[in-house]
Amino acid sequence: MKSKVLYNREKEKLSIVKIGGNIVDNPAELQKFLIDFNMLKGLKILIHGGGAIATKMAEQLGIETKKVQGRRITDSETLKLVTMVYAGLINKNIVASLQSIGCNAIGLTGADANCIPSIRRSPEPVDFGFVGDPDPQRVNKTFIVELLENASIPVFCAITHDGEGSLLNTNADTIAYTVASALSDIYKTTLYYCFEKEGVLMDLNNPESLIETIDIDEYNKLIQQGVIADGMIPKLFNSFNAISQGVSEVIILHAKNLLTGKGTKLI
Amino acid sequence: MKSKVLYNREKEKLSIVKIGGNIVDNPAELQKFLIDFNMLKGLKILIHGGGAIATKMAEQLGIETKKVQGRRITDSETLKLVTMVYAGLINKNIVASLQSIGCNAIGLTGADANCIPSIRRSPEPVDFGFVGDPDPQRVNKTFIVELLENASIPVFCAITHDGEGSLLNTNADTIAYTVASALSDIYKTTLYYCFEKEGVLMDLNNPESLIETIDIDEYNKLIQQGVIADGMIPKLFNSFNAISQGVSEVIILHAKNLLTGKGTKLI
Repeated sequence: MKSKVLYNREKEKLSIVKIGGNIVDNPAELQKFLIDFNMLKGLKILIHGGGAIATKMAEQLGIETKKVQGRRITDSETLKLVTMVYAGLINKNIVASLQSIGCNAIGLTGADANCIPSIRRSPEPVDFGFVGDPDPQRVNKTFIVELLENASIPVFCAITHDGEGSLLNTNADTIAYTVASALSDIYKTTLYYCFEKEGVLMDLNNPESLIETIDIDEYNKLIQQGVIADGMIPKLFNSFNAISQGVSEVIILHAKNLLTGKGTKLI
Repeated sequence: MKSKVLYNREKEKLSIVKIGGNIVDNPAELQKFLIDFNMLKGLKILIHGGGAIATKMAEQLGIETKKVQGRRITDSETLKLVTMVYAGLINKNIVASLQSIGCNAIGLTGADANCIPSIRRSPEPVDFGFVGDPDPQRVNKTFIVELLENASIPVFCAITHDGEGSLLNTNADTIAYTVASALSDIYKTTLYYCFEKEGVLMDLNNPESLIETIDIDEYNKLIQQGVIADGMIPKLFNSFNAISQGVSEVIILHAKNLLTGKGTKLI
């Protein structure tokens, strides 16, 4: 269900760009990407993932990575770690880099100004620990719109909060989908998922095998065939959800192609 | 020199509260302090120090504390560490705590929205590394005022930036002085330095020996007598500077006395 339109006017364009951990891990690629991001016209929001820096830091601090059914658990030590790395180290360095090239970035978690409240995921059937699932209906749109209208560029890391004092580790793709969905009744929103591949590929090892457009039927067919697997499943699931919530366009693409928009377009 | 008045109106009251590292280190005392801070009437800004958490984390990560002439040096590893601990761990947990008690906090570094640009300290005579000295004239007052007018409560950690892509470690007392000075032409500003002592004491070991008011002449006399020493010298120096820049009131006090205002008042 979509919330009511806040402003009675023709919709302005908004780009919501999610940059994956593999790019964040590489300082040269990240810098190149930030320059492109700065050149993207119109209102925009950046959302960044974590990457290997957190894993490396966990090793240095002797924090063991706990997994259940192959999926990571965020215990209290891991929550501290990701808060330091995502909200501190990565977020603030991205902000300083953007500021240095004239982009008026402001780094945020979902806790700041209560931008993205989450619900801690139920401990049943699997207790993932301090992990949050945000809800597009509860996003603080008023505040985010104010920032955008004042020419600030929000930069979100993958941390939210439960409103009861606890921060929560949250999937960055999900944050991108949530913010895009929340703002789609106010803006004509394009969601870009930037990562280290050309888009959705028929053959992971062949960048030429790019699927240029994909719809929900094709998506289900490709999952059955095993072409779409692992991390790509939730990314596409979030993307189709975003479209059903009113997001105009979702593009999955290589970070280097942000300005051309070449990648897999969801229809 | 004071900048021109931005708004032609009677000045509203603004409290700028700096909380020291010793309180931040103690979860129970911090929580109590945040409840008091939330009860403080009117517009307000919180600025927090770092404390022993950073030192402990440095040990865990094997980062050596480098000193020159007894003063810490911020090398690139230390800068990463303080960015993680101050801007990530401490700042975002304070924000989440404040949000949970109904205080609409937003956590910021000086890099965010270019709120507090700094100049990296000259390497002569001593190279302190990535340390920044902010300038009240360059504070992004427009943005901070917008936040305050929209009922947001800015929470600053002790990190600024040079505008050229580098974050800078910055003394939290200095940030408090800088922000207070910058906003004093817009608001009737009171600067509170909260820490673990009752205020300026004639005898450090006797909390009853509180100096209730102090002026610049008394300050100089007490330095000569050795009564005021160590960290209290820059704190008072910043405080007198703040008053000369138009800050209405500076009070140095125990964190537990924030609501009564009982402490040492600078005149």
